[in-house]
Amino acid sequence: MLRKLTLLAMVCLIPILLTAQELKSPDGNLLMKFELSDEGIPYYNLNYKGKPVIKPSALGLELMDVASMDAGFEIKEVKEQSVDNSWKPVWGKQSIIRNNYNELSVMLVQPALKGRFIRIRFRLFDDGLGFRYEFPKQPELKYFIIKEELTEFFLAGDHKIFWIPGDYDTNEYPYTTSKISELPEKMEEATIQVAAQSPIENLAVQTPSMMKTADGLYINIHEAALENYSAMNLNVDADNYKMSAHLTPDAIGNKGYLQTDTHSPWRTIVVSDKATDILASNLIVNLNEPTSYQDVSWISPVKYIGVWWEYFVHGGSTWAYGTETNVKMDDDFSKLTPNGRHGATTENVKKYVDFAAMHGFDAVLVEGWNIGWEDWFGNWKEDVFDFVTPYPDFDVEELQKYASAKGVRIMMHHETSGSAANYERRLDRAFQFMADHNYNSVKTGYVGKIIPRGEHHDGQRMVNHYIHVARRAADYGIMINSHEAVRPTGLHRTYPNWIAQESARGTEFEAMGGLHPEHTTILPFTRLMGGPMDYTPGIFQTTYNDGEQRINTTLVKQLAYYVTMYSPLQMAADLPENYDRFPDAFQFIKDVAVDWDESHYLEAEPGDYVTIARKAKGENEWYVGGITDENARTANILFSFLPKGKKFVATIYADGKDASWNENPQSYDIRKVVVDSKSKLNQKLAAGGGVAISIVEGTKENMKGLKRL
Amino acid sequence: MLRKLTLLAMVCLIPILLTAQELKSPDGNLLMKFELSDEGIPYYNLNYKGKPVIKPSALGLELMDVASMDAGFEIKEVKEQSVDNSWKPVWGKQSIIRNNYNELSVMLVQPALKGRFIRIRFRLFDDGLGFRYEFPKQPELKYFIIKEELTEFFLAGDHKIFWIPGDYDTNEYPYTTSKISELPEKMEEATIQVAAQSPIENLAVQTPSMMKTADGLYINIHEAALENYSAMNLNVDADNYKMSAHLTPDAIGNKGYLQTDTHSPWRTIVVSDKATDILASNLIVNLNEPTSYQDVSWISPVKYIGVWWEYFVHGGSTWAYGTETNVKMDDDFSKLTPNGRHGATTENVKKYVDFAAMHGFDAVLVEGWNIGWEDWFGNWKEDVFDFVTPYPDFDVEELQKYASAKGVRIMMHHETSGSAANYERRLDRAFQFMADHNYNSVKTGYVGKIIPRGEHHDGQRMVNHYIHVARRAADYGIMINSHEAVRPTGLHRTYPNWIAQESARGTEFEAMGGLHPEHTTILPFTRLMGGPMDYTPGIFQTTYNDGEQRINTTLVKQLAYYVTMYSPLQMAADLPENYDRFPDAFQFIKDVAVDWDESHYLEAEPGDYVTIARKAKGENEWYVGGITDENARTANILFSFLPKGKKFVATIYADGKDASWNENPQSYDIRKVVVDSKSKLNQKLAAGGGVAISIVEGTKENMKGLKRL
Repeated sequence: MLRKLTLLAMVCLIPILLTAQELKSPDGNLLMKFELSDEGIPYYNLNYKGKPVIKPSALGLELMDVASMDAGFEIKEVKEQSVDNSWKPVWGKQSIIRNNYNELSVMLVQPALKGRFIRIRFRLFDDGLGFRYEFPKQPELKYFIIKEELTEFFLAGDHKIFWIPGDYDTNEYPYTTSKISELPEKMEEATIQVAAQSPIENLAVQTPSMMKTADGLYINIHEAALENYSAMNLNVDADNYKMSAHLTPDAIGNKGYLQTDTHSPWRTIVVSDKATDILASNLIVNLNEPTSYQDVSWISPVKYIGVWWEYFVHGGSTWAYGTETNVKMDDDFSKLTPNGRHGATTENVKKYVDFAAMHGFDAVLVEGWNIGWEDWFGNWKEDVFDFVTPYPDFDVEELQKYASAKGVRIMMHHETSGSAANYERRLDRAFQFMADHNYNSVKTGYVGKIIPRGEHHDGQRMVNHYIHVARRAADYGIMINSHEAVRPTGLHRTYPNWIAQESARGTEFEAMGGLHPEHTTILPFTRLMGGPMDYTPGIFQTTYNDGEQRINTTLVKQLAYYVTMYSPLQMAADLPENYDRFPDAFQFIKDVAVDWDESHYLEAEPGDYVTIARKAKGENEWYVGGITDENARTANILFSFLPKGKKFVATIYADGKDASWNENPQSYDIRKVVVDSKSKLNQKLAAGGGVAISIVEGTKENMKGLKRL
Repeated sequence: MLRKLTLLAMVCLIPILLTAQELKSPDGNLLMKFELSDEGIPYYNLNYKGKPVIKPSALGLELMDVASMDAGFEIKEVKEQSVDNSWKPVWGKQSIIRNNYNELSVMLVQPALKGRFIRIRFRLFDDGLGFRYEFPKQPELKYFIIKEELTEFFLAGDHKIFWIPGDYDTNEYPYTTSKISELPEKMEEATIQVAAQSPIENLAVQTPSMMKTADGLYINIHEAALENYSAMNLNVDADNYKMSAHLTPDAIGNKGYLQTDTHSPWRTIVVSDKATDILASNLIVNLNEPTSYQDVSWISPVKYIGVWWEYFVHGGSTWAYGTETNVKMDDDFSKLTPNGRHGATTENVKKYVDFAAMHGFDAVLVEGWNIGWEDWFGNWKEDVFDFVTPYPDFDVEELQKYASAKGVRIMMHHETSGSAANYERRLDRAFQFMADHNYNSVKTGYVGKIIPRGEHHDGQRMVNHYIHVARRAADYGIMINSHEAVRPTGLHRTYPNWIAQESARGTEFEAMGGLHPEHTTILPFTRLMGGPMDYTPGIFQTTYNDGEQRINTTLVKQLAYYVTMYSPLQMAADLPENYDRFPDAFQFIKDVAVDWDESHYLEAEPGDYVTIARKAKGENEWYVGGITDENARTANILFSFLPKGKKFVATIYADGKDASWNENPQSYDIRKVVVDSKSKLNQKLAAGGGVAISIVEGTKENMKGLKRL
């Protein structure tokens, strides 16, 4: 699966003379400088085309009980190398990814501490910088505890920033756009109530942190390959525009337990003067390790529907079976009082299976199938779910037979209620149950405060938990879609069965107050930088309860999400009966690919709009998605991503002329035209609207009667 | 397995009139009084034969976030019943246990809190009191968090007390004997350094707390059926002789997370004017639930040897295979540098298997068989052991074949290094590995600080962990012998495969500074009150390293332990070559039973001496063990426990005339005599010595030439 196409490596040992080192990106646009202060404090800075991106910023770590790695350093050894190769992901936005960087590795020694040493490794790509701390095996350093990481990101000005509050437990905040200097005044309002939140007490924001400078530079700070380490928030010094690492603590306030040989995650700074370059960046996956899985043939993208949205809409069904509000795992759930609205019944699931089979979906997610939902949330309860016992009205065997006969898989659901301890204890049995019943994918959930109590969703322990689950799942041939887990950092390269995550405010919030129309124009620049999101798009029926519940998009924008919100796991989230009402629009969801050979980022501005074209993997089919925020706009789509000299049929799903997210969301217009690589489309997007285009090769038959664009 | 022989139950509903209630023990010796103060605070007191045992002491619980259960109570309902039945343990000190008590159950309501209510259930036996808090299901009480339990034990005087310091993580302290009033001055000295200790900051001692009043009353305070709750220490008000509950906190300081319907463990007060009655008490097991295991045929007492003591003695071998001091689970351990002293080699284990087979032992414990011992302790490391990967010089398959052919089992060893989190994640696979390789018992270990970090050995989380391990083990037909787990509370009745525990300062400390000769005259009154101890007796070679290492007993006292230190799991802990040097004394270890029909407590005084006779289960064989502290004494043994009118041959293993624990420990004398139920033996025990007697039915052959006692 991984093929090294080219490898250019030069390793040179530089004499220990200088305290300053420079590194340039392959294209020369980025310049990174590393130096030690007089006190032996490591500093780095970063320029892009001569403009400062990061001003001189300190590096280091504060340790518990022993001397910190913060000062008194000398440079012992410097190594450089250049790498230019390519690799093929198991699935992804493109089928070949180039990995091209110049590397500087600096060995730093603390002579006063018996020569204790670390390395800082910098990798400078054309689209940004990655660096990490490395802690080699050595007599003076075996086990150590991190009190705090001291990495700084000293920004060059009062940038515009797209941010959510720093928090140890949740990413489900709406975004605020402001100047860095405005953060203090806006933090309180931004910190809305979210289930099981732990906002950081000092001024802090989460990563991926997307910024734009006054002179048009786009800067994105995040991390890559977060393993065996706590997730990083960013402290903000709003007066000086200086950010610094703020790791997630454990139950007793420590921030990481490490054993040499080991290293930190990569700290990443993606930079460009073009917003589309940020979206196109592969820096984060390039900094992750290739997978060690020997066989990946069982891992494949999935398009699914599910017993899910009906739990959110007014008058819908419930996860719980009984009316009782105090149940225990050992109770006999067949003795509960049925509430009459349970969603995951054998009968109801069969309807979904029928629909999936009829429309070519791979799988049907079923939430609420297992005992425990009567009081699953908010009690900090340890043993909520056992992951193997269905409700009395859900027949596992019968449904597996039924689905299997129709070529559909049931998708497992493991809500943990945040009780990772309970899930870990039962994981092998839960996965064995899945294997025994023909399940090959599971949506996991971590709603609620973490157990072991005092731990956080984003701390080292839980970071390791999610990876543990993914690795164990691989042993059983199971794919994972984790919700409420730590924000992704490109680990899907290493664990490709960890196929998607939520880790942001997703479609469910459209049913709980609504998402701002600009929300999904920001997510690709923030949440999606780390990996695919199970955003669960495709909501056609956009109002409920006499307009009390409203989805803040046009219907067409929901279609566009299948392209703009990249994921190898895509849900058609609405109720089957709503798709039945709009079969022509639904056709796009049926057609759209979930795995890609190429991606072309046509236009983008964070907070405003995103237009992307992608080529289906192994197919001569292209899909375009374009979205806008609350403002109507005209998308200028150049079809130059198409092969030259050929004709194609484009089906354009456009907002109706009278469409808007808040007044007339279900107005749309579908037309077919002939296009080629020279075609241009100026497509009007409604306020809160979008455009979706499917493109196939032109044939005599399918072009018959169609006009050229 | 459980047979109710008789059941006399009377339930009577008493009109709600009085605030005071009285309860008498079946024999009338104990009188318990319950009343509410004017503030609605519950109080109880206890008298024995008219003497105060517990003066009026408050009851209640302090809760987090909601109003406490500490005052404002009214009595809503009172129920009484009397029970007299018997049951048969799977294994034990006797084959039938009588369960005879009078019960008072008081429903207490807090009218100011919407009628929130609890129950306090008192059970008064002839040998003491048990009571617990019960939290029934009710609209006003579903989930709650305990800040502290407020139970008091207000003692009537400045009693003599046998104590170890209150601690959340270890019971491995030596005992101090003092007046209650002397506790403050003696606490610092008593709190010696122990691995992974967390001494309580205020003045506190552990349970079982053994006391003796100035007028000769013996009082023992402990708890029974500790499940889903934190272990209790006792705060001590040394001026007023008042003790109160001090529960073990979790990582964030809370002391228990409960969901109704539920209850606390039983608080137990065993009382008598005879010390032997304390040892004979079955109050704690009677307060535990019968086992729910359907099949217990696979559970059986075990006599074993092991690759163990050689790790402790000077010049011995090591658990670790390599010389490296920084290893990870994923390392290739075959590439380590062998230290040349690894104990658990295939070759060495075969010698133990040969010895076990030759002398009729059931099993051979092998510690140090699995990878990870190079840096297993003291680093708060999470993934130390994987429980399934042997060292390169330990051949699991080969040894299983070898042992199986000789009728011997290998006993598994699962040291967790305190990382319960890691063990739980791997438990199913670890047990499956055992099942696949013919293991049916495992010694578990919890040396070190607990992971999840911040949790304690004795907190609710770990209490539940040990039970989880026992229950999962039962699913695989595995018996558990847990070391460094929370002190036992009679749960072996409910989980009879949890066959023994350590949870005290055991024989290993004889190799690490030595145990005081009185230590084992106290343990039966303290640690053993809760359940059997894997004390690992049988050390014949009592000095090492030119006397630097010394076991502080005579050889014969080690024999006596097989009777005085009750356990269904008994080790012959010394090296095979040391047994080969004393085959005549070793005969007692080979002969002695590990399961019993009857136990007779002949003489006892905590801190001074203990003499016990037991009848082997299903055999006409009796074994007597007597021990003394640092003072020589004469044990007065009456053989009235033998059936009348028959003759028996007693083999008496006595200290030599010149024996003593510190000067001449290996001097012993073995003689055979004829005894009957009228025989009396005045047997001299050396300082730090003992006596062991095996008794079989007399026949012409075996009595030939023997004298009557």
